[in-house]
Amino acid sequence: MTAPDVRHALGSTLADADILTEIEDLIPYGFDGTATLKERPLAVVFPRSTKQVSAVVKWAREARVPVVSRGNGTGLSGGSVPVAGGLVLCLNHLDRIVELDRANLTIRAQAGVVTQDIFAAADAAGLFYPPDPGSMKISTIGGNVAENSGGLRGLKYGVTRDYVLGMEVVLADGSICRLGTACVKDVAGYSLRDLFIGSEGTLGIVTEVLLKLLPRPTARRTLLATFAAMDEAAATVSAIIAAGIVPCTLEFLDRRTIQCVEDFAHVGLPTDAEAVLLIEADGHPAAVDDEVAHIEKLCREHAATTVRVAADAAEATRLATARRSAFSALARLRPTTILEDVTVPRSELAAMIRDVEAIALKHDVQIATFGHFGDGNLHPTILTDERDTAEMHRVEAAITAIVEAALARGGTITGEHGVGLAKKPFLRRQLGDASYSLLQLVKRSFDPDGLLNPGKIFDLPA
Amino acid sequence: MTAPDVRHALGSTLADADILTEIEDLIPYGFDGTATLKERPLAVVFPRSTKQVSAVVKWAREARVPVVSRGNGTGLSGGSVPVAGGLVLCLNHLDRIVELDRANLTIRAQAGVVTQDIFAAADAAGLFYPPDPGSMKISTIGGNVAENSGGLRGLKYGVTRDYVLGMEVVLADGSICRLGTACVKDVAGYSLRDLFIGSEGTLGIVTEVLLKLLPRPTARRTLLATFAAMDEAAATVSAIIAAGIVPCTLEFLDRRTIQCVEDFAHVGLPTDAEAVLLIEADGHPAAVDDEVAHIEKLCREHAATTVRVAADAAEATRLATARRSAFSALARLRPTTILEDVTVPRSELAAMIRDVEAIALKHDVQIATFGHFGDGNLHPTILTDERDTAEMHRVEAAITAIVEAALARGGTITGEHGVGLAKKPFLRRQLGDASYSLLQLVKRSFDPDGLLNPGKIFDLPA
Repeated sequence: MTAPDVRHALGSTLADADILTEIEDLIPYGFDGTATLKERPLAVVFPRSTKQVSAVVKWAREARVPVVSRGNGTGLSGGSVPVAGGLVLCLNHLDRIVELDRANLTIRAQAGVVTQDIFAAADAAGLFYPPDPGSMKISTIGGNVAENSGGLRGLKYGVTRDYVLGMEVVLADGSICRLGTACVKDVAGYSLRDLFIGSEGTLGIVTEVLLKLLPRPTARRTLLATFAAMDEAAATVSAIIAAGIVPCTLEFLDRRTIQCVEDFAHVGLPTDAEAVLLIEADGHPAAVDDEVAHIEKLCREHAATTVRVAADAAEATRLATARRSAFSALARLRPTTILEDVTVPRSELAAMIRDVEAIALKHDVQIATFGHFGDGNLHPTILTDERDTAEMHRVEAAITAIVEAALARGGTITGEHGVGLAKKPFLRRQLGDASYSLLQLVKRSFDPDGLLNPGKIFDLPA
Repeated sequence: MTAPDVRHALGSTLADADILTEIEDLIPYGFDGTATLKERPLAVVFPRSTKQVSAVVKWAREARVPVVSRGNGTGLSGGSVPVAGGLVLCLNHLDRIVELDRANLTIRAQAGVVTQDIFAAADAAGLFYPPDPGSMKISTIGGNVAENSGGLRGLKYGVTRDYVLGMEVVLADGSICRLGTACVKDVAGYSLRDLFIGSEGTLGIVTEVLLKLLPRPTARRTLLATFAAMDEAAATVSAIIAAGIVPCTLEFLDRRTIQCVEDFAHVGLPTDAEAVLLIEADGHPAAVDDEVAHIEKLCREHAATTVRVAADAAEATRLATARRSAFSALARLRPTTILEDVTVPRSELAAMIRDVEAIALKHDVQIATFGHFGDGNLHPTILTDERDTAEMHRVEAAITAIVEAALARGGTITGEHGVGLAKKPFLRRQLGDASYSLLQLVKRSFDPDGLLNPGKIFDLPA
């Protein structure tokens, strides 16, 4: 199979401009947001309807060509890297918000709609779409569903899964199928919808989603506290939870991240602090005021060196920038930035952060850590240079050690970035043989020819 | 295979008293809470550990004996009726709350723990387990997970699925496997946990669950409004949602239910009302006060004939009794009570209630309707007599008409009771051929011998 073969075969299905086959056009579709992973596809296609997706998949099946679906390629586990070559099926022309239903608090959108646009459409109607992955200004909702993306509001509002009511998917044989309904309660058969959420394009291709919305919280306040000792920050988080408070976000930056962010964004962070907590409360104004006052008191009781409550929305945005810019700030330091994504039960988080520090020392690699303290989701960020082979070996050893530490603490190898290629070597260890085999069984049932995003999550025995 | 064969074969695995084989002992395990469905099992076994469950399943597989798992048999779709004979595996001796983890807001419990005990254990720790199926004082958490049970708090708090972080299951080959972790965020592989939730014992047997808890809301207030016209009640609900208010419960009773409940529980309901809304708000005290005041105003603007806000907890309980006793009150009227469970998008609810009234008239059957107005989940309750063959034919026609009306309105054949036997004839119509075949494919993959709760949800082609 050659690129001209693909153009010839799909020319009657897709417009000429919706098929890319020139090498220079293919390069951008060979990688995603994950460092060091690249492959070149045979061709890239841009269907403009579910029917076209179906036709492409049917053809690919007959021609036995792998199909990797993707949106805007912001993934952080290599999920859309076309490791087996074949077609990249890019859904970003399926970019229509189909319906916002105010009576039923739902929004229906095609897979290629940018997450931020879902949020904005809901917001304009006085409603709220909570999942806010770091990439939401670029990432598409189809990608979010494929990865079950999280974000900063996970503690209070959950993740993408918690907002997907229904979806349209194209199966491996090209058939089109609707899963779920507009009903909040629906127990008619196994929840295949939930099976597809987080399946990383390996079971089918999600072309449209129906999402649940919430009323927009009427108030929101932001607070930033700095600590000279990380254990005090951790104790503060425990005290907040013990007080029955569930903040909308509860984020953490370590010393290296603080220094970097300050250097980059000039937020006014004390660069000698060992930990920063960024906390947002939202809801009814009186509830938010009480929560913020209570949180401020708890921070001070746990030896916070400074506590700043944003006076207005502008200051809140400035404080939130400290966290939102962490990755960009860190990425400036070294040529290669590897964003880890382990998660542990909340009570293990302080110990896990110390594990990461010890691992960085032991393997002589630079690691800055930030993440979602409230839901135990850490992003140890390794600053390195992929051209330095010796250092990359140490980086690999450090990543393995981080993942093993998370597993030893009852955690998961990936909280929100997915398995893709990056976490494939560790999955069996987390799941155990019985569950791991079940995953493979599901894959074989749904995609018997193994053509949908092959080589991701796990390898299949021949 | 005879009952003595079973006793002989499992005698080394289970205590003698944990195997029932006498006909009079088997009868109670031949039915659940669903009217008119009964079968007799070959034997009933009561394992006391996951290992014993595994041993029983392994033996059953070798002996090719069907296994129907169940808890306390409160199901409302016939899910635990042993239609193919074989073993009933009753999990109610697995009744231990293993751990309540305050730091991580989780509770780990064996499958046979009664739902109310989960709620009470959380409550005693200042925490909150929201799912509250009508049967929660008797039903077990394993059954709730198997059916993905809902309840009265679904609008604000979701259903059982939204609280299951992890589980231990025994698969069809007897292997024991853990799904999910204690992490709120976990995207390591397909969510098999979600596939098992609501799978009605057909894919494996859930032996232990790890549940998420919330902080207990600090305030709760209850309000009861009566309406002379059902449309006004529906308009009130729409206005509440449009105002950005999500009450904890938002329940509805129709005229016949009101009359019955008043006759039974003497709550002081006006028996000439056409609709009653029972509304509970919970959360921060100031938020609750604002919500209740706003809701009261909206009720009055939409021509409520009376609005009663409970002055204290005792009065709130009395008002809530009106809704909680609906089923028991109705069940006194005729020998057989069939509780339907269709759900439609919220905006279709008033029309759906009128559909049900027209269907009752057309088929000359008595139907009283109550349910969860907030999440579109209706329980049209058919009052009949299963000994009257002619009437039962009319009842069957009415049920079919109700289910078809729900589907025509974009709804589901079951909101919270499951498919089991009762909804099996309608499932394919809701899902369409492609999804329906996928369900069968999943079943065949997980249970190739078809021995786990056979004949439920769908039939398999030979």
